[in-house]
Amino acid sequence: MAQKPSIPKGTRDFGQVEMARRNYIFDTIKGVFSLYGFQQIETPAMENIGTLMGKYGEEGDKLLFRIQNSGEKAALAPEKGLRYDLTVPFARYVVQHREELSFPFKRYQIQPVWRADRPQKGRYREFYQCDVDVIGSDSLLGELELIQIVEEVYRRLGINVCLHINNRKILAGIAEVIGAPDKIVDITVAIDKLDKIGVEAVNAELAERGLTDEAIKALQPILTTPSQNVLRTTTGRPIEQSSSPAQGRENNPQAKLAELREYLASSEIGLKGVAEMEEIFELVESTKTLLDSDDHRQSSVLKDESHFSIELDLCLARGLNYYTGAIFEVKALDVQMGSITGGGRYDNLTGIFGLPGVSGVGISFGADRIYDVLTELDLFPKELQSTTQVLFATFGAEELRYALGWAKELRAQGIAVEVYPEPTKMKKQMSYADAKQIPFVAIVGSDEMAQNKVMLKEMSSGNQQLVDLPELVKSLKG
Amino acid sequence: MAQKPSIPKGTRDFGQVEMARRNYIFDTIKGVFSLYGFQQIETPAMENIGTLMGKYGEEGDKLLFRIQNSGEKAALAPEKGLRYDLTVPFARYVVQHREELSFPFKRYQIQPVWRADRPQKGRYREFYQCDVDVIGSDSLLGELELIQIVEEVYRRLGINVCLHINNRKILAGIAEVIGAPDKIVDITVAIDKLDKIGVEAVNAELAERGLTDEAIKALQPILTTPSQNVLRTTTGRPIEQSSSPAQGRENNPQAKLAELREYLASSEIGLKGVAEMEEIFELVESTKTLLDSDDHRQSSVLKDESHFSIELDLCLARGLNYYTGAIFEVKALDVQMGSITGGGRYDNLTGIFGLPGVSGVGISFGADRIYDVLTELDLFPKELQSTTQVLFATFGAEELRYALGWAKELRAQGIAVEVYPEPTKMKKQMSYADAKQIPFVAIVGSDEMAQNKVMLKEMSSGNQQLVDLPELVKSLKG
Repeated sequence: MAQKPSIPKGTRDFGQVEMARRNYIFDTIKGVFSLYGFQQIETPAMENIGTLMGKYGEEGDKLLFRIQNSGEKAALAPEKGLRYDLTVPFARYVVQHREELSFPFKRYQIQPVWRADRPQKGRYREFYQCDVDVIGSDSLLGELELIQIVEEVYRRLGINVCLHINNRKILAGIAEVIGAPDKIVDITVAIDKLDKIGVEAVNAELAERGLTDEAIKALQPILTTPSQNVLRTTTGRPIEQSSSPAQGRENNPQAKLAELREYLASSEIGLKGVAEMEEIFELVESTKTLLDSDDHRQSSVLKDESHFSIELDLCLARGLNYYTGAIFEVKALDVQMGSITGGGRYDNLTGIFGLPGVSGVGISFGADRIYDVLTELDLFPKELQSTTQVLFATFGAEELRYALGWAKELRAQGIAVEVYPEPTKMKKQMSYADAKQIPFVAIVGSDEMAQNKVMLKEMSSGNQQLVDLPELVKSLKG
Repeated sequence: MAQKPSIPKGTRDFGQVEMARRNYIFDTIKGVFSLYGFQQIETPAMENIGTLMGKYGEEGDKLLFRIQNSGEKAALAPEKGLRYDLTVPFARYVVQHREELSFPFKRYQIQPVWRADRPQKGRYREFYQCDVDVIGSDSLLGELELIQIVEEVYRRLGINVCLHINNRKILAGIAEVIGAPDKIVDITVAIDKLDKIGVEAVNAELAERGLTDEAIKALQPILTTPSQNVLRTTTGRPIEQSSSPAQGRENNPQAKLAELREYLASSEIGLKGVAEMEEIFELVESTKTLLDSDDHRQSSVLKDESHFSIELDLCLARGLNYYTGAIFEVKALDVQMGSITGGGRYDNLTGIFGLPGVSGVGISFGADRIYDVLTELDLFPKELQSTTQVLFATFGAEELRYALGWAKELRAQGIAVEVYPEPTKMKKQMSYADAKQIPFVAIVGSDEMAQNKVMLKEMSSGNQQLVDLPELVKSLKG
């Protein structure tokens, strides 16, 4: 036999079980997006190379997959590349279709992206992104809605999370206040490592990156605030038995922001950042109160087991340069994993395509990491394994015909049915049901047929009983 | 301002309305696939070029989009190309994962494919295919299930269709019988044009393609059978007011196949084809009888307005060389459009990857053409236009806060809600609802707030009424 075929490094096939699980994640997320009026769009896999180049830095340009032109006029055609993310195509889309869109434009997009990264564990050359953005409004309601969406998605998935929030204007303000406004990137890169390497190592790195002793000294209050550089608040139900660093350290975010307001008193942009954060926290608190005090809460469809908290995290920087306001990252509490959702406010995303001054805010859900979290915590619903509810297994050609009639009737009632295509050995037919985790097998022999019944076997228990069609429908629907 | 950005020729952006409509098509199809136990898989956009090359003929090879290798070891990496269809990746998948799969393996796959075709109306360089196959069984139950799936999908979509069916073995038998077994391709290409150019032109073309006068003479009974080379049967409800050529010409397929059996008496393969068709028609008839005689029919969820018929169409050839048994094409009756679904039986698809002798049968739904048919016949459900059920429009910052609480409550009840993010001019907020076709606007001013109510406006009628929260929920859910 020929060599087994394979697929390119860093790409994946998704089998039925993986697809059912991925669809569960995407359907859950889409369901929440829809509740907030976000609507789906799709853009082509290929973009003109000019749309992509220069948008992801020098390193990003190198990671673009380029398409060779083919066909008659290959030399004349503009070069093309595969989508590297969903953000740049979204910006291109908004500018290209601006006349047709109503703003604020609320869209989501779930499509694969491609990067010529070196493949390694958890890093793929093809992976799905799942982005939600509202563009064309600078109202902080956008931030509020995204926070609510994060809470609701993870509540539905049953994952306990902490949403870390910071603000680029605050980071800029800090850089100004310590007299190093041009060093904002160095400062954010360094303090991003605080959790891992500690204050002293961060200070050493800051010195290396050219910060003066004076600037580093001025930065210390940020690096060593009472709750270790983090201001926290908790919304929703209290956190119990979680591994969150916030545990037992509930703070009043308004008080913490007031401290920060003093620290940033000389920086206009820093104060603007503080004001934004105050408004966002106030919005979150006000809707929380309204919700929790409401009697209707009990009647809601939501699960109530999962926990959600928000932390003002001054260490949060996020690499992308287009963020200008609030930035977010979400971490799962009960499992070691990087950020599973992230995003932020941008004031000029469409500027790269000639439409300046349009503000928006968006986040991206990391489907692969969410998949891994759900797997590790065993949170996928069991019924995802099989969509088929019953398999008809038959002893002969006539019984097979008989089963086809029953199958057609069950399907007309909305029940997913398979008929094993040949009246082969019963063992083989049962193995098929086993492998596909089909919960029931309806066995049809001449006796059953004579009585106008089938022998219904429950695969988990091995229990069998003779049932007629209405009884079978009842068993499968019940 | 810079030049408006654009996308590569032959590719498309899908906006919210198009996406909602496309999702409606895909969700309908997926729902039916699930009823039959087909499960979804996905394969990567890129395949190794060796997987793709030589599978689509010389012309197809030229239409492959190739990916330039990038990164450090670019010269060493195997070359890659974008998926050209879903069939070859499916064959590759089955061979690569054969140890993990349980056969018969029932899968569906809905993903884009790419072809470097010259873009023109209705022909794109990126388009979705929607394939369903069962592989690993030569039972004609596969054919039956696909026929049932076609009937059910188009019944749910409300499209009247005719399913044309033929058999490659019958075509091979005809070529044998007329003494031109090596001319099967020429014969099928020529008779494929019968409807368009008529018998005489077809005969001329056959002569041009090297068929002897004798062979052409022997072919005439096929080209001029009583019902113009087509044997027909109708299942399901009778056809009324449709543009089907089958109208008023109901035939007994068994009798017609008996005629064909005589004609093909000297061809073993031809007779095998006839036997297959007899069994398929018999299976269709038997399940039809069972269903139509059943009292439970009334309780089914299916629409009963649409019409479905099956024709044995000896003109049907289909270009792809891997078909070895039944072949199908589906045409919409009430609109001029090519085939909207097609497929067939193949006995050696996985042979190209070193796994011979695995029989399967599959069909592909043409999403773009189905979209066009639904548009032309105005069959898309109206409610697809907007997912948002109510927009909150407010007169001030305090009202906006108030609306946020209501919105959160409605969402907890599963109702899709938007809150206009700023208390700007009422006209602007109403225009937003108009543009997004949101059916209700809940207007909040200080009066409404004082009464703990909102003014609910139905956009279609302009009717307004003051409602409290339970009344609002009732209005929106009812």
